[in-house]
Amino acid sequence: MFRSHTCGELRLANLGENVTLAGWVQRTRKMGGMTFVDLRDRYGLTQLVFNNEVNAELCERANHLGREYVLQVRGTVAERSAKNNKVATGDIEIIVNEMTVLNVSATPPFTIEDETDGGDDIRMQYRYLDLRRNSVRANLELRHKMAFEVRRYLDAEGFIEVETPVLIKSTPEGARDFVVPSRMNQGQFYALPQSPQTFKQLLMVSGFDRYFQIVKCFRDEDLRADRQPEFTQIDCEMSFVEQEDVIQMFEGMSRHLFRTIKGIELDAFPRMTWHDAMKYYGSDKPDTRFEMRFVELMDVLKGHGFSVFDAAEYIGGICAKGAASYTRKQLDALTDFVKRPQIGAKGMVYARVEADGTVKSSVDKFYTQEVLQQLRAAMNAEPGDLILILSGDNANKTRKQLCELRLEMGSQLGLRDKNNYSCLWVVDFPLFEWSEEDQRFYAMHHPFTSPKPEDIPLLDTDPGAVRANAYDMVINGVEVGGGSIRIYDSELQHKMFQLLGFTPEKAEEQFGFLMNAFKFGAPPHGGLAYGLDRFVSLFAGLDSIRDCIAFPKNNAGRDVMIDAPSAIDDAQLKELCLNITL
Amino acid sequence: MFRSHTCGELRLANLGENVTLAGWVQRTRKMGGMTFVDLRDRYGLTQLVFNNEVNAELCERANHLGREYVLQVRGTVAERSAKNNKVATGDIEIIVNEMTVLNVSATPPFTIEDETDGGDDIRMQYRYLDLRRNSVRANLELRHKMAFEVRRYLDAEGFIEVETPVLIKSTPEGARDFVVPSRMNQGQFYALPQSPQTFKQLLMVSGFDRYFQIVKCFRDEDLRADRQPEFTQIDCEMSFVEQEDVIQMFEGMSRHLFRTIKGIELDAFPRMTWHDAMKYYGSDKPDTRFEMRFVELMDVLKGHGFSVFDAAEYIGGICAKGAASYTRKQLDALTDFVKRPQIGAKGMVYARVEADGTVKSSVDKFYTQEVLQQLRAAMNAEPGDLILILSGDNANKTRKQLCELRLEMGSQLGLRDKNNYSCLWVVDFPLFEWSEEDQRFYAMHHPFTSPKPEDIPLLDTDPGAVRANAYDMVINGVEVGGGSIRIYDSELQHKMFQLLGFTPEKAEEQFGFLMNAFKFGAPPHGGLAYGLDRFVSLFAGLDSIRDCIAFPKNNAGRDVMIDAPSAIDDAQLKELCLNITL
Repeated sequence: MFRSHTCGELRLANLGENVTLAGWVQRTRKMGGMTFVDLRDRYGLTQLVFNNEVNAELCERANHLGREYVLQVRGTVAERSAKNNKVATGDIEIIVNEMTVLNVSATPPFTIEDETDGGDDIRMQYRYLDLRRNSVRANLELRHKMAFEVRRYLDAEGFIEVETPVLIKSTPEGARDFVVPSRMNQGQFYALPQSPQTFKQLLMVSGFDRYFQIVKCFRDEDLRADRQPEFTQIDCEMSFVEQEDVIQMFEGMSRHLFRTIKGIELDAFPRMTWHDAMKYYGSDKPDTRFEMRFVELMDVLKGHGFSVFDAAEYIGGICAKGAASYTRKQLDALTDFVKRPQIGAKGMVYARVEADGTVKSSVDKFYTQEVLQQLRAAMNAEPGDLILILSGDNANKTRKQLCELRLEMGSQLGLRDKNNYSCLWVVDFPLFEWSEEDQRFYAMHHPFTSPKPEDIPLLDTDPGAVRANAYDMVINGVEVGGGSIRIYDSELQHKMFQLLGFTPEKAEEQFGFLMNAFKFGAPPHGGLAYGLDRFVSLFAGLDSIRDCIAFPKNNAGRDVMIDAPSAIDDAQLKELCLNITL
Repeated sequence: MFRSHTCGELRLANLGENVTLAGWVQRTRKMGGMTFVDLRDRYGLTQLVFNNEVNAELCERANHLGREYVLQVRGTVAERSAKNNKVATGDIEIIVNEMTVLNVSATPPFTIEDETDGGDDIRMQYRYLDLRRNSVRANLELRHKMAFEVRRYLDAEGFIEVETPVLIKSTPEGARDFVVPSRMNQGQFYALPQSPQTFKQLLMVSGFDRYFQIVKCFRDEDLRADRQPEFTQIDCEMSFVEQEDVIQMFEGMSRHLFRTIKGIELDAFPRMTWHDAMKYYGSDKPDTRFEMRFVELMDVLKGHGFSVFDAAEYIGGICAKGAASYTRKQLDALTDFVKRPQIGAKGMVYARVEADGTVKSSVDKFYTQEVLQQLRAAMNAEPGDLILILSGDNANKTRKQLCELRLEMGSQLGLRDKNNYSCLWVVDFPLFEWSEEDQRFYAMHHPFTSPKPEDIPLLDTDPGAVRANAYDMVINGVEVGGGSIRIYDSELQHKMFQLLGFTPEKAEEQFGFLMNAFKFGAPPHGGLAYGLDRFVSLFAGLDSIRDCIAFPKNNAGRDVMIDAPSAIDDAQLKELCLNITL
């Protein structure tokens, strides 16, 4: 061992001890005849002292140390005259009497500090240096802890972690697969799993009863911000359960994580139907850290001669508490915000509730104070509040716009504190989603999701109205997990495939092995999957999942540090019987 | 929840309770007016009773249950008149008063019993049914437990589990990579990792200090028995350590596993140099459950007119205790064994030590009793022992043959009990391996392995004699793990590449990012990796790793259950700019 202690370990209790430390030079300071070096490792920072009068040669060597040099030093623990209460070792320093430079370092291209001067690109290229920063490493320590606590909880609940294969079979349905050419089966390909969905269902057929896996999944999508071609799921499945059992189990897991990692004791999570989430928040993953629910205003505002509202299919408002003082400039900025192409509203109407209770709106000329008071009552607005209203010819589209406005107002009013956690189950999702474009139904979750038993008759008469036994866990407006009770009855599964437009042949080709397995006694089962990357970034208070991934890829799917993907040898292509046709 | 208890839970203490169970029909027996059904789940087996006199309709339904039907039953816990002490629930049975068939089952293609009538092929095709067998599921439960205990131990020792990427860069050196065509970077490929070696070294450069990961790795090799294209490693690395630190840490981990999983308290693991392992066992992974060490017999047996020995470059023997009673037939079978092409010996000489101490050998006509007594003394053989001797013109080749013979004798004499564990560190591996074919050195482990400091001068004069700071953990003749101290000095690394025949350009192209990282202050570091599949199969007493993998592939790299790999759509090939050229 190159050290007797870590750089985060020594305290006043160690005074006088002879110790050996190893680590990286964070910085050096020369003050009079003394040279101070901050030595860093994963565990902390310890101040080293070199005294020119005691050992001139050693002190001179210390003066020539560069940033990020790797040192091994021997010395004595001494009390500092000027203590530093910002670091755990701030009461002590090491009087060094021996120093070995284990390795030199070129000057890093950016500073290794919590706040660095390195831009995203250079940080990614030198990710191994970026990972030296405490703030980045802390995210990965958190990730380790969360994964470990997940395992501890699930193990205690009788779950078995089973590794499912990575080299599987391509299925054209859903997102695009990454494929892997097979050399031993020429002209054929494996696919990398988008999720272990079918395998976990097979494990239920096998009687594994309670399965989980923390597992890499892969999707060859055009990458938006916060998407990675490879990502990690906490994948879970249980047998002989109903929706309530799954919800209880995994609410328990989340509470366990909040308790052990964050020291937060959470109440039972509220539940909201998908229908209410869309109606009141315009989103299936509402941020419930703050209220500001939508109020539909068709009855109040329609038919008063304001053509925009009179023609609208939907008029909805939110009440921003205490925001009546918003200036014209701020309100214009909000209007610009909702008119951005990503959001797409045509305009925004506002109304202020004055101190005396009167309402002043941007459409005053169309509405009497009486109607505006009806508006105020509908919005439950008080003096000092600001009412913001959007309208449009498509209710769902307008709700989504209003959702963006609501989130923006929540941010502006400081209602979205990252240290405040609001957890929620969204339940009763529709089973199907209608595609106007393709004029057909798609499965909202996946084709194995079970309809609610009481809605099964609707499959024949009104499929769009069928609700699923599906549920999402939403925290602070982020969908961290979701799942469903699965179909375990072959007849019902066949019906689902039919409704989804699968021919029997296509269903057989893609899911034949699963359907076959179901012939041999499939138990009732259900489960869910969490996105670990998102879960960790939520706990870490990060805006992007990237900084809780050790070696992430950029938006073009490239790892710029190792320069992958890259060309491969012709010989290798030949072995795989492949030609590139650019 | 479909059940109040599992099928392994109820005892006499539960007598009279009304319970609900769910599970699979293991079998049904009709005896007089009673029908007995064994209901199975992951946790056990419970006997259900249906009485024709009490409820004829229900009993009739029970009579029509098929194997593997999925049931939910309600009933009362009663004491059995004929107890069964072979199952944990054998004292009780359930008097059923309500039964729901949750799912029917087709007749399984093989019996779901510990000893099944299903052959390998059909078991793999219906793996989800094979996994219902207790013996197979127990292996996966063991795997879960071992992985969990590994994590518990390493977490307690301050290791952080970090997920390294799966989509990385192809390196032509070493085994063949699986590659993944990139759609967003056309004509380029990712590779799947053969191990996270370079990433874990980067994490050490990043100051992570103690890293581990239980991780899938991939090798596109022609599959022999006991090789899988995807396999799982326990991958570990530590900074500021020397070989002894790594050995202590991971010996501790193995002892922790034996203690917590097997209830076995192991002594400190002995160490053996690679040189001794080869000399005394003809293998770098000797099975030390039994002695039977090689004795070199050149001095004793050469020069007595037996032309085979007189021409040999190596003559070695083993002493099989108490095997003098081997018949001529048995000895002939052993001779046939060593002459098999996979072993390739030309013949075998034997010598028995009779009760009176005289030695009778198969080459008596060439040797006097005096020489044979010298042989006996050299072999330390006693009356009743059997001496087996091989010779050849290549010492290492002959030792490998003798190794096979030794293992075979160990098996025949019952010295290789699967419940007896003999652990060993093999140390002081050579740094290089000379390839006669290519007339060059190869790295025995990999190019990052550090030579022993005292052997560094030999790099210039006698590279073949340089020993590495490398170590393997061997249990019962199986290499379960191995690793090394790494080079952290750029100069030394360049020298290694040079000795291994890399041009500076080639080294830069393949390992440039690692070499670059090393410029910024690499700490001394080292680690090792375990093969989890092998480790589990050793604990499970399995001959093949296949039965501790949930969904293994066959020797052609195929998953016969899901039928992968398979053809993919032309559209998908087109998107990837690929043509198949069969």
